[in-house]
Amino acid sequence: MSDHVDSILAQPARERVELLSRADRIFHVILAQQFSRTFIDEICMLAEMIRRIHTARQGADFLRQQLAHRRAMLYFIQPSTRTFLSFTSACQIMGIRHNEVRDPKTSSEVKGETEEDAVRVFSQYFDVIIMRHPAEGFVEKTAHMINEMQRTIPIINGGSGKDQHPTQALLDIYTLYQCFSGGSLVRRAAGVKADPFPGKKIAMVGDLKRGRTVRSLCYLLCRYPEVKIHFVSPPELAIGDDILEYLKEHNVAFESAQELDPLLPELDAVYMTRLQDEHDEAPGESAKLDYSNLYLTPQKLTRCKPTLAILHPLPRRQEIHPDCDADPRAKYWQQVQNGMWMRAALLAYVFNSEGRIKDYYLENYTY
Amino acid sequence: MSDHVDSILAQPARERVELLSRADRIFHVILAQQFSRTFIDEICMLAEMIRRIHTARQGADFLRQQLAHRRAMLYFIQPSTRTFLSFTSACQIMGIRHNEVRDPKTSSEVKGETEEDAVRVFSQYFDVIIMRHPAEGFVEKTAHMINEMQRTIPIINGGSGKDQHPTQALLDIYTLYQCFSGGSLVRRAAGVKADPFPGKKIAMVGDLKRGRTVRSLCYLLCRYPEVKIHFVSPPELAIGDDILEYLKEHNVAFESAQELDPLLPELDAVYMTRLQDEHDEAPGESAKLDYSNLYLTPQKLTRCKPTLAILHPLPRRQEIHPDCDADPRAKYWQQVQNGMWMRAALLAYVFNSEGRIKDYYLENYTY
Amino acid sequence: MSDHVDSILAQPARERVELLSRADRIFHVILAQQFSRTFIDEICMLAEMIRRIHTARQGADFLRQQLAHRRAMLYFIQPSTRTFLSFTSACQIMGIRHNEVRDPKTSSEVKGETEEDAVRVFSQYFDVIIMRHPAEGFVEKTAHMINEMQRTIPIINGGSGKDQHPTQALLDIYTLYQCFSGGSLVRRAAGVKADPFPGKKIAMVGDLKRGRTVRSLCYLLCRYPEVKIHFVSPPELAIGDDILEYLKEHNVAFESAQELDPLLPELDAVYMTRLQDEHDEAPGESAKLDYSNLYLTPQKLTRCKPTLAILHPLPRRQEIHPDCDADPRAKYWQQVQNGMWMRAALLAYVFNSEGRIKDYYLENYTY
Repeated sequence: MSDHVDSILAQPARERVELLSRADRIFHVILAQQFSRTFIDEICMLAEMIRRIHTARQGADFLRQQLAHRRAMLYFIQPSTRTFLSFTSACQIMGIRHNEVRDPKTSSEVKGETEEDAVRVFSQYFDVIIMRHPAEGFVEKTAHMINEMQRTIPIINGGSGKDQHPTQALLDIYTLYQCFSGGSLVRRAAGVKADPFPGKKIAMVGDLKRGRTVRSLCYLLCRYPEVKIHFVSPPELAIGDDILEYLKEHNVAFESAQELDPLLPELDAVYMTRLQDEHDEAPGESAKLDYSNLYLTPQKLTRCKPTLAILHPLPRRQEIHPDCDADPRAKYWQQVQNGMWMRAALLAYVFNSEGRIKDYYLENYTY
Repeated sequence: MSDHVDSILAQPARERVELLSRADRIFHVILAQQFSRTFIDEICMLAEMIRRIHTARQGADFLRQQLAHRRAMLYFIQPSTRTFLSFTSACQIMGIRHNEVRDPKTSSEVKGETEEDAVRVFSQYFDVIIMRHPAEGFVEKTAHMINEMQRTIPIINGGSGKDQHPTQALLDIYTLYQCFSGGSLVRRAAGVKADPFPGKKIAMVGDLKRGRTVRSLCYLLCRYPEVKIHFVSPPELAIGDDILEYLKEHNVAFESAQELDPLLPELDAVYMTRLQDEHDEAPGESAKLDYSNLYLTPQKLTRCKPTLAILHPLPRRQEIHPDCDADPRAKYWQQVQNGMWMRAALLAYVFNSEGRIKDYYLENYTY
Repeated sequence: MSDHVDSILAQPARERVELLSRADRIFHVILAQQFSRTFIDEICMLAEMIRRIHTARQGADFLRQQLAHRRAMLYFIQPSTRTFLSFTSACQIMGIRHNEVRDPKTSSEVKGETEEDAVRVFSQYFDVIIMRHPAEGFVEKTAHMINEMQRTIPIINGGSGKDQHPTQALLDIYTLYQCFSGGSLVRRAAGVKADPFPGKKIAMVGDLKRGRTVRSLCYLLCRYPEVKIHFVSPPELAIGDDILEYLKEHNVAFESAQELDPLLPELDAVYMTRLQDEHDEAPGESAKLDYSNLYLTPQKLTRCKPTLAILHPLPRRQEIHPDCDADPRAKYWQQVQNGMWMRAALLAYVFNSEGRIKDYYLENYTY
């Protein structure tokens, strides 16, 4: 069994992606490369519908009824509060009961069980496994492994190694959608299809080498080649060449820079990230870098467009001064909440409930 | 932002209290000084109604439906089982889904996030934050901070520093209500208003210096100046002068003593507390104190009134001998359960459901 | 109080068993010796009904409604993932809200509370306590203790010391039922009563001395004296003499052996277990034993009956090669899931819901 899985993992991403789908739709949510433009458009629309439906008590009751018969395992071996709470909240919004394993020490691994067997056990109890894991590729491996079992259930990647964080990328692009074409987001349900990001300039700022959120977001932005991306980082923390290659392949324009200030007046969105010094190879390595010209302050914001969207995957350190929080262009708290709606949308999607939600929306709301 | 909050915290409690209310009702439940006599009377009545409604399956289903669309964060950084389980039980009784952060090490603080940002994130996901925190004033600070954010949600204090434990004080006074005027507790709904504690003598016994439950209860008893309080402790563990000042201001009679035994025959209630030696400034400091004359035993109970109410906030050590548990005057297990009803009442109150619960009670029960 | 409990615990099991029942039915689920043949037959039928009802959304909704007004405490002081998740899943299937205490360090014990008082507190908040505890007899002691309290709630043993794991034994025998008389399992509801295990040969393999699951299962198999048990282990890890005595008393045929291979062709079921080296008295003691002839491999399976049932309580190490997993005779994953159905059945039973479930089944299903 694991030999076969290993041979799958040796294939290029393009081919592995197909094995994560079933009956022509995504079954396991694992890699940012899985998401077509159509899928991203639809899932953002679904998230927005869920968000609006939930504002009414009746709507919240409707949503909670949809997946009340489902139960989820959150296998979060890597420390995480935000993503974990975002997923549990999404479960609760959709009525899903959840359980968690967060500390491998409480698990049976102390009795010598393999992680593969632990996953096999979870698959007997639960209807979906949401997994965050420090080992690169482990979440994807689990999905392929579970494909070979009798009881196959969807796996959702809640962050895997240094590489992939696909649900974060989806919530990021959903936030961009809201900022750039907010009002019309659900008009798509009536057939209105428009380019959401025409000519938008988006800067990715900070530790681009080790932050997986930027990498995953770049995969998604390749579905929207009308954008232009500016990578801003110290040279030591530049974005990986594999991402640049992928952007070129998909005809996305990009530039690299070391200074944020000159770019500020022309940006439509800025995606700030923190120093990932927990991944330092030598202790204190990152402390030597001058990161301070990559900080946002209220003063710098005076030079920006009034429609700028400021995003941050959080947690933040000094990249964004707290005094920026009150600025209407600060979208990072809204972005946090969007994670909850996006994950609720993904859960609805993997359990095939998106049709009922769309119907409910169209029956009860105008656009 | 935090400058403004700091300036608020520098004001006297009387003025801060008003900032914790909204539209003339308590919004954040933070300080025992917030509770007027009317509020205490009403919330005890509500707790008692919830307790009675819950005895029937139909009633339990009704209650669980009331707040089924709400979700709570329990941010309990200080170790606690009893208060934590009391709040989660209260959430479950009212139908609220909850999540928890109990170990700051699992949180994003390891990635350098401030606690302020963590709270901002919670406020995006949840409808209420119930918070227990070792740092004095942190819970109140959070409430003022959240008042300045776009999405304001109620904060409930589950125990803050050495100072305040307001929900414990409410459950304590609710238990006194049950003991002293049990049957008539909900007659208030029909307009019957009577003094619940006429001339009652209540002893507070033990480590009065460091036990926050006694402090909080004293704030509440000031709304009932017809009581008389006896403080009984070794001189080293005497109640703080600030509390004595507060009692004088409110015309509550009190006395201090070092011996419990002579008082026993005349007491109507005795509130026992344990030695808080985890707060010792020098190790073993408390061990030198003779605490044994402050213990209750079955033998001592023979000298007490048959209507005495024995309370204890728990956990207990040797203060009350387990052989007292079977005595009908032992009310501390009932008191534990009352915590659950009182917290359910508070949750119903902050979400404005008390009207519907009162209606249900009056439709289905006579007094 | 504890004197009285101690005197109860000094009595033989036969007499203690009666104290765990109420109104002629099991109230606390503590000891495998409690289960009569009628009870085992009925609870297996109930588990199977719940499993089938749950396959339909409407059925899942029906089940979740049954105990939606109940709340459970999972007091799991001993590390466990599988049993813990099995019980939480069972709670969720029946609609029960649960809370947990897993780490005694988060509990009030740090403040000097006794475990007895902790249990007394839980009994005020919850409707059932499910308990896993490293100290032999502690779970049973709790049940007797709670019998003496005003508010008595059922206690369910989730694994106690080295001795008892009764719910595991029930799920094991339920799995044997499925394997040996699957289709007819619920015909009993229509009055069909047949011997489920006529002349079946069952081997118990591995660390029989220290594995509590085998011990508990033997107690149950004594209700089915038509089976024959083969104990297969190194002599150092042989099954306890107390179990052999118990089997003799109940006229169950058994043999002991050190080699698994010669037995394989004639077995109807094989119950594999792992080395419990965490219970070694001297470090590395077990490592000296040759355990390898007690392993199952695909090659060995070629010599077995096509109807063999392979069971394992998990976690496994090398006892069963992962390549056996795809063999239809491997029932250990199904066995894992059965734990969930069996525990749901037990919860339904202690709350007197089995009648409604049986009615629902008979109204909606044919056998």
